[in-house]
Amino acid sequence: MIEPWKKIGDRVDYDCGFFKVHVQRSLSPLTGKEHPFYVLDTHDWVNVIALTPEKEVLLVSQFRHGSGEISAEIPGGAVDRKDASPLAAAQRELLEETGHEAPEWFSLGSVRPNPAILNNRCHFFLARGAQRVADLSLDEAEELEVKKVPRGEIGGQIRAGKITHALVIAAFQLLELFEAEKPDKR
Amino acid sequence: MIEPWKKIGDRVDYDCGFFKVHVQRSLSPLTGKEHPFYVLDTHDWVNVIALTPEKEVLLVSQFRHGSGEISAEIPGGAVDRKDASPLAAAQRELLEETGHEAPEWFSLGSVRPNPAILNNRCHFFLARGAQRVADLSLDEAEELEVKKVPRGEIGGQIRAGKITHALVIAAFQLLELFEAEKPDKR
Repeated sequence: MIEPWKKIGDRVDYDCGFFKVHVQRSLSPLTGKEHPFYVLDTHDWVNVIALTPEKEVLLVSQFRHGSGEISAEIPGGAVDRKDASPLAAAQRELLEETGHEAPEWFSLGSVRPNPAILNNRCHFFLARGAQRVADLSLDEAEELEVKKVPRGEIGGQIRAGKITHALVIAAFQLLELFEAEKPDKR
Repeated sequence: MIEPWKKIGDRVDYDCGFFKVHVQRSLSPLTGKEHPFYVLDTHDWVNVIALTPEKEVLLVSQFRHGSGEISAEIPGGAVDRKDASPLAAAQRELLEETGHEAPEWFSLGSVRPNPAILNNRCHFFLARGAQRVADLSLDEAEELEVKKVPRGEIGGQIRAGKITHALVIAAFQLLELFEAEKPDKR
């Protein structure tokens, strides 16, 4: 039976403003020995699968500096201190990144982006009936392009390696499970 | 049309042994202005969906220091310099973490764990016919428990929040797409 480790120390070893690197010292429940673990402390994130009335998915393409590639993703971002809730953050990101609002919102659940080294969650939402109501509202270093892709083509784009972001792919898995449970929401 | 940014500088700002934090300076293709971007440099990763002849999935449960939770995941880890390929790393991790080998291996594709801040890929594999051939072979700070879960119960465990690791959830999405394309491999 696996047991939690006991944290006996925690210090910030690096802080770049976007995330902090903590060094945690913890005791093994099996051996009692101490080991260090490096953990990135960062905000929770949100991602939105927004469907238009024509069952198209809104995708935003942008250059990503980690991969050095242009990446097609669903809208999303970090939950700010100003956001009242993950849902509010998702609605704000959808509006800022795509200029769309939607009348119907559903939670698809939340995941751990990487429980080994990140301490945060990513919350997934489905927004149905999304319609353009405004211009995009982007940060200075944000440059992106909004595309509409028929829902039925998303699987093929994932399989073909055109959609590569793991959190986006996980969101579509959660959407399928949500729809299988609630066929009236399909 | 979204264009790549031009990198004009790159320095290592932090190195903990598991990853390095790079500060990249890049020029916007739209404005020509310079911005800094923080990127984590780390190894590629591998994950394996291993199915027994009885169509059970091998899950490994372990305490994760990022989330501070016990997490049920598919076997996987980092591609080492000693590994000849991602497939070799996947076979090594399956053997070390579960004591299983499998006669049939298929690539399910690869994803970007987080293209915004990580520069690596995660490669997913399907191993069919997995059978126990050895004891586990774990690092000193690795403590884990192997479970077999019927394939048909995985979706319910994801939906119920019992499987939360985004890369694991993405792997099952890629498995579904693989099987839809190759129904003879189901």
